[in-house]
Amino acid sequence: MCPHVLIPYKPVNPKTRLSSLLDLAEREAFARAMLDDVIFAVKDANCSPVVVATELYDSEDIQITVEDADLNKTLNEILPTAVSPLLIIMADLPLADAQAIRRVIATEKDVAFVPGRGGGTNVIFLRDAQKFHVDYYGASFQKHVKIAGEAGLSWELIDSFRLHTDIDEKEDLVELLVHGSGKSRAYLESLGFRLAENEGRVSVERRR
Amino acid sequence: MCPHVLIPYKPVNPKTRLSSLLDLAEREAFARAMLDDVIFAVKDANCSPVVVATELYDSEDIQITVEDADLNKTLNEILPTAVSPLLIIMADLPLADAQAIRRVIATEKDVAFVPGRGGGTNVIFLRDAQKFHVDYYGASFQKHVKIAGEAGLSWELIDSFRLHTDIDEKEDLVELLVHGSGKSRAYLESLGFRLAENEGRVSVERRR
Repeated sequence: MCPHVLIPYKPVNPKTRLSSLLDLAEREAFARAMLDDVIFAVKDANCSPVVVATELYDSEDIQITVEDADLNKTLNEILPTAVSPLLIIMADLPLADAQAIRRVIATEKDVAFVPGRGGGTNVIFLRDAQKFHVDYYGASFQKHVKIAGEAGLSWELIDSFRLHTDIDEKEDLVELLVHGSGKSRAYLESLGFRLAENEGRVSVERRR
Repeated sequence: MCPHVLIPYKPVNPKTRLSSLLDLAEREAFARAMLDDVIFAVKDANCSPVVVATELYDSEDIQITVEDADLNKTLNEILPTAVSPLLIIMADLPLADAQAIRRVIATEKDVAFVPGRGGGTNVIFLRDAQKFHVDYYGASFQKHVKIAGEAGLSWELIDSFRLHTDIDEKEDLVELLVHGSGKSRAYLESLGFRLAENEGRVSVERRR
């Protein structure tokens, strides 16, 4: 059975660490395209996404609008009300696919995590959400492992680079241009972004 | 059955993109510690590692020493001689574990790839190595996919962040300090490296 899936999403002024590459309108369109890619993957895994957004936005997605932009406070008010398993997945994971999501929810543990790049937490599966609370920002993966331990919950790390690769910084766009196949990759390409070969790792350049 | 495992390794002046953080002797010791972590994971998956090194180095590892430092030339001379399946895994993947390696060699395709960060290729499984040749450096993942296609070989991308995370740059050290459990993490910590919380992603600092 697929759990309910919560997708936190900030439609207004998102992805500020990409400001040197994308203007405000482009960052908002890009964040929306990434959200659409995540929703596609969630539905492809036969799960039902609910977007937890800081503002009402124009779409047919099922959305909860929250006034408070504090992600932890918002989710920690929702978690105690959950009566079935819950998956929390970030909206900036455009490489997500159904196979990776299925590996997460197939865990036999109480909790499954996919860490994000740079110490964060990109995906959390909770068999019983009432026993857990979230503490995002900073080294949240280590904090979440500690919270699970203190609650006596067994946990597992799911080893997926598709769900590990959150798109926050210029270098991350390389991963999207190499491995992406959805709307957000197409949007970047429509803006003129291309791979550029340098010494060492490949980077990106914007040609217009 | 486990394939033979080749691990290319450069003992002298490795990891030059870490030169601002580590001096030459430290880079060499760090590269060796990462190699040891990869060898541990390979053996833990019940496979037999063979290190393909540019210089003879002091160890009891089974090693082939090659005079030519050109990785492509070296491997493309070995591949046509292979009579059984082959796994090629880079030496800078200290988050590798047996479970991830087993997922690679369990592929039902002719070839399995794990892409590296920034367009590279970290792991290649070849059921019949005589039909393939390697083309590392730059956007090698895309090149390898093309080579497989041109040879009529079916292929699969194995979704693992443990094998995706090659350690080349300062930001990569964060991943090792968060998720590592072997010699190379211990070595970094012995040098005084610690996680440092900033805005956004966690970074590293060296305290001595």
